[in-house]
Amino acid sequence: MQTWFRKLVVETRRRAEMIDVTARLQAAVEEARVASGLLTAQAMHTTAGMTINENADPDVVGDLLAQLERLAENPAYRHSEGNSDAHLKASLLGASVTLPVVQGRLVLGTWQGIYFCEFDGPRLREMAVTVLGE
Amino acid sequence: MQTWFRKLVVETRRRAEMIDVTARLQAAVEEARVASGLLTAQAMHTTAGMTINENADPDVVGDLLAQLERLAENPAYRHSEGNSDAHLKASLLGASVTLPVVQGRLVLGTWQGIYFCEFDGPRLREMAVTVLGE
Amino acid sequence: MQTWFRKLVVETRRRAEMIDVTARLQAAVEEARVASGLLTAQAMHTTAGMTINENADPDVVGDLLAQLERLAENPAYRHSEGNSDAHLKASLLGASVTLPVVQGRLVLGTWQGIYFCEFDGPRLREMAVTVLGE
Repeated sequence: MQTWFRKLVVETRRRAEMIDVTARLQAAVEEARVASGLLTAQAMHTTAGMTINENADPDVVGDLLAQLERLAENPAYRHSEGNSDAHLKASLLGASVTLPVVQGRLVLGTWQGIYFCEFDGPRLREMAVTVLGE
Repeated sequence: MQTWFRKLVVETRRRAEMIDVTARLQAAVEEARVASGLLTAQAMHTTAGMTINENADPDVVGDLLAQLERLAENPAYRHSEGNSDAHLKASLLGASVTLPVVQGRLVLGTWQGIYFCEFDGPRLREMAVTVLGE
Repeated sequence: MQTWFRKLVVETRRRAEMIDVTARLQAAVEEARVASGLLTAQAMHTTAGMTINENADPDVVGDLLAQLERLAENPAYRHSEGNSDAHLKASLLGASVTLPVVQGRLVLGTWQGIYFCEFDGPRLREMAVTVLGE
């Protein structure tokens, strides 16, 4: 049993954006040479998060971002940086995802992709990836 | 230290529904013969999720589903399948839950149950279960 | 590879409150003598949750709690205990967080802190902490 750890850089280009990182996380599993275990991927920020959702029709991501925008709107926020909406979205989705690794592959359903979710970009971001297993 | 993995089928009967899978996950821990470690349970879909909540008064689940419905409503969604509300609910709750296993038992508070959350049923669904430990 | 487990008590003082437990979780990692692996921290309740968010400006936490209050409001809730808003907030944030441990330290971004989130206090609460690794 071993623990493999790496920080990956994610470059974002808009204020709010979901970036499919599935292929990079699968590559991490291969680099870790772990056949079975667990992977975690964590956004290292408080205005970004991680989620699993559809990677086929891009309108799904567009709809998710639009509705999160509506849920997070509040003219009465007090935080002086003016990005409390982004902090809320980060907590609603969560900072990390945890997935099984089986036979050297991330376990994902047919339509599932793993997204790094930027809510206060564009920025250079970091994602911490751990693969625990053997 | 070992990794036990299995896909379980979950049959749902309504469009939106929370199904208590606590007993099935505890049975998985026993079948895995893991005394201490971690369990993850992941909905293999992008319009379903997992959560931990009260398993005593069924009105709690009803209230949760009703309020999620309100939070996810948006007549301006663009995704052609018309189920963007279900995709949003899936990301709000998350695709998976992770729980400790101690002395062969899932660690849960008195009122906590583990729910598979259907948001675009009824369907036959899959849940991936991993037990990591020894 | 070992599994370390402990229940910690968290005393809350308001109905809704986010309590920074980062230092207590780092202390747990040290007590577990785990150099690399994963930590999970789980609220053992259905009206409390866990999240990672900013630990610098306290207005961030205030804004998060205020907006969660708005999202969870619904005069039509049926659950007789009258705390369905708290159950919803618990599921929106999630019952637990999972973080990597590297070189004996929790992996957190510069501004990230780990919060126990009380939504139906004040109460004495329990948080289950697992450290898996070696």
